[in-house]
Amino acid sequence: MSSHLRLGIAGLGTVGIGVVKIIQRHADLLSKRTGKPITITAISARDRMKNRDADLSAYRWEDDPMAVATANDVDVYVELVGGDNGIAKDSIEAALRAGKDVVTANKALLALHGQELATLAEELGRVIRFEAAVAGGIPVIKAMTESLAGNEVKRVMGVMNGTCNYILTRMESAGLPYDAVFEEARQLGYLEADPTLDVGGIDAGHKLAILSSIAFGTQVNFNAVEIEGIERVSIDDIRRAADMGYKIKLLGVAQMTPRGLEQRMSPCLVPADSPLGQLMGGTNMVVVEGDSVGQIVLRGAGAGEGPTASAVLSDIVEIARDVRMPVFGQPAVQLKAAQPARTAVPAAYYIRLELQDKPGALAKVATVLGDAGISIDRMRQYGHSDGSSVPVLVVTHKTTPDAIDYAIETLPGTGVLQSDPVELRIEEV
Amino acid sequence: MSSHLRLGIAGLGTVGIGVVKIIQRHADLLSKRTGKPITITAISARDRMKNRDADLSAYRWEDDPMAVATANDVDVYVELVGGDNGIAKDSIEAALRAGKDVVTANKALLALHGQELATLAEELGRVIRFEAAVAGGIPVIKAMTESLAGNEVKRVMGVMNGTCNYILTRMESAGLPYDAVFEEARQLGYLEADPTLDVGGIDAGHKLAILSSIAFGTQVNFNAVEIEGIERVSIDDIRRAADMGYKIKLLGVAQMTPRGLEQRMSPCLVPADSPLGQLMGGTNMVVVEGDSVGQIVLRGAGAGEGPTASAVLSDIVEIARDVRMPVFGQPAVQLKAAQPARTAVPAAYYIRLELQDKPGALAKVATVLGDAGISIDRMRQYGHSDGSSVPVLVVTHKTTPDAIDYAIETLPGTGVLQSDPVELRIEEV
Repeated sequence: MSSHLRLGIAGLGTVGIGVVKIIQRHADLLSKRTGKPITITAISARDRMKNRDADLSAYRWEDDPMAVATANDVDVYVELVGGDNGIAKDSIEAALRAGKDVVTANKALLALHGQELATLAEELGRVIRFEAAVAGGIPVIKAMTESLAGNEVKRVMGVMNGTCNYILTRMESAGLPYDAVFEEARQLGYLEADPTLDVGGIDAGHKLAILSSIAFGTQVNFNAVEIEGIERVSIDDIRRAADMGYKIKLLGVAQMTPRGLEQRMSPCLVPADSPLGQLMGGTNMVVVEGDSVGQIVLRGAGAGEGPTASAVLSDIVEIARDVRMPVFGQPAVQLKAAQPARTAVPAAYYIRLELQDKPGALAKVATVLGDAGISIDRMRQYGHSDGSSVPVLVVTHKTTPDAIDYAIETLPGTGVLQSDPVELRIEEV
Repeated sequence: MSSHLRLGIAGLGTVGIGVVKIIQRHADLLSKRTGKPITITAISARDRMKNRDADLSAYRWEDDPMAVATANDVDVYVELVGGDNGIAKDSIEAALRAGKDVVTANKALLALHGQELATLAEELGRVIRFEAAVAGGIPVIKAMTESLAGNEVKRVMGVMNGTCNYILTRMESAGLPYDAVFEEARQLGYLEADPTLDVGGIDAGHKLAILSSIAFGTQVNFNAVEIEGIERVSIDDIRRAADMGYKIKLLGVAQMTPRGLEQRMSPCLVPADSPLGQLMGGTNMVVVEGDSVGQIVLRGAGAGEGPTASAVLSDIVEIARDVRMPVFGQPAVQLKAAQPARTAVPAAYYIRLELQDKPGALAKVATVLGDAGISIDRMRQYGHSDGSSVPVLVVTHKTTPDAIDYAIETLPGTGVLQSDPVELRIEEV
């Protein structure tokens, strides 16, 4: 490695340009903090002619990311191309084989191929760092691999997709239905080209899979994440949940149980006065629970040029300081394949029913819940909304997901429901 | 360095025993995560006979911390003796000279002698790490030196003394005056032997001075911190502030201004619905604002056996992983002595007055505020509380501390005040 740290950057979208700007603006600061100048040698992006908000004239342009990844005058390959395969993966592998360290923000790639890439990097004695892949500017990867290294992690939770949190909080504040706010978010440019990555919970699921691996020393396994998006969250449920003292969040939860590793990303209720419940707009939050440290809460911007570039820089700085770590905090060959487990940890549940307005309807519901072994903590019946159906909310005591599934499947058979029941887990946070 | 990392621990209070327990409980985990076993060789504490909640029989006992600090079979000296001078400082210096790295939780020592110790350590090629010195289990040192290394820090804030936050939130929840809750805290063992370290804001001031140094690349300078404790915070002010939508916190704020470095630790009002405002009990919170990352909020337990020991372990793990960093994030010889600046950044202020119940009293107050160039955002006059005085609250628009000082000094001369006016800064958070 030269006395400079020389970067090759592939991908000059929001994050890539953010990285360039920080390196230009803070050259002195970075050199003071790392003991060596950090410079950019080569860059690449899809469209050379695109107007970009930075002076790139000092850097060698390559049409092919591969040329950046393998250039002799590059020490660190910064992959910001994106995509869970293809050129992102190929160029990272090429960079590793060419003796480069790698910094990436590519959560999809790591969630799907993290184990393979980590194994390759460690065989070759290289590092891959990816602070920007999870929760933007929030230093959660570092917190988990380093700050909590003396802890057995009990549970990791988080709101890790700012677009979903924007949609859910905006629905509540503006009293608008999902479709209207989704359209707003699209017009504001908050949505990925394929919006199901956001609202379908997939992007957040990628992030959770990565955090699980670090938390529990297991091989990253995105396919084992139970994922449900926010598409079925209605303004009705948001309002009713608020009535009962809750907020609805797209919440990721990972925990190791005797039956295996539970990983789920789904709309949940959390207490309105908890840190997670109070999270508004595009902000992200990660909550980590360790056996010694207790609960640590990290909050900040989960996306955007500055925050994400800040995270990329933290990785570059670590490499400049010669900090060399296994990709997932311990050697990849040591990571175990976790037994995936469906959610079985008991929780309270919120159930919303639209009952037909006839005598005995409530009794039939209570019978089904009783048969399922579910006891009721609180129930609220609202006034007749339209003369034919009566909204009823139930908050259960702690019960198992199986019991809830049984009840939700059985309830329509009572013949007293006006529409399908809605159930949401109430996560203890 | 041997293939083991061998620790010598001086000080076996709450934190020291916590460290021993983690090392015993998580020997395998630590070895997996660092690639080498971490073992304890020698220990020392004031009283060998004291009953401690851990099996210490495998470790060599030394009566003198110096013997631990300089032992040939110790790689890392873990200083948990405490105290801003004396044996803590002497033993750390001896350890450095004997070629040991040092981990400490000693905020007072670092706040007063950090520059000197860092210079010595770096001359000798050793590291001193101190994650546990600030905000217990919250990884704020690492976040600032590493995660935000690509940022120019704009401001650091925090609630960093759990005892003070416990007292303030307990006063509000129980409706008890300061003296009563102080006594409760003493009986619960929450207070330092010298309680002014806590309630006088000194302990929190130490922590702020350390954070300032890292944030702004300046020499740590505790003596330049403007400190005011919570002793004069009354239950009246807590209630009135709540009425206006605020909470009172012992808040540290450090920011670089064109006039120099402002560092203050004082009771402030913050919006009740902000993350800082919502912080209850002994929990700590640090807020860091960087030019790229925006605002990052870190929250967790600020004290206690597990959380503080967790932070000590994170430092030990970093040394085991051969991560070597300048003590304050950049070489000590590079750190500049900051020009200390009294608080001049404008803010809104809360003013509580007890007015005599006579005509024209309010007009006289308004005249003084007007003369001081202070404009009023909101004013609230309460009913006659005892027939002779009328509580009046004022929330000002943004104004300078000098203007407030002038008003507070001038108001008693109006002859309409029943008691001295109370003013508190409203920090924008």
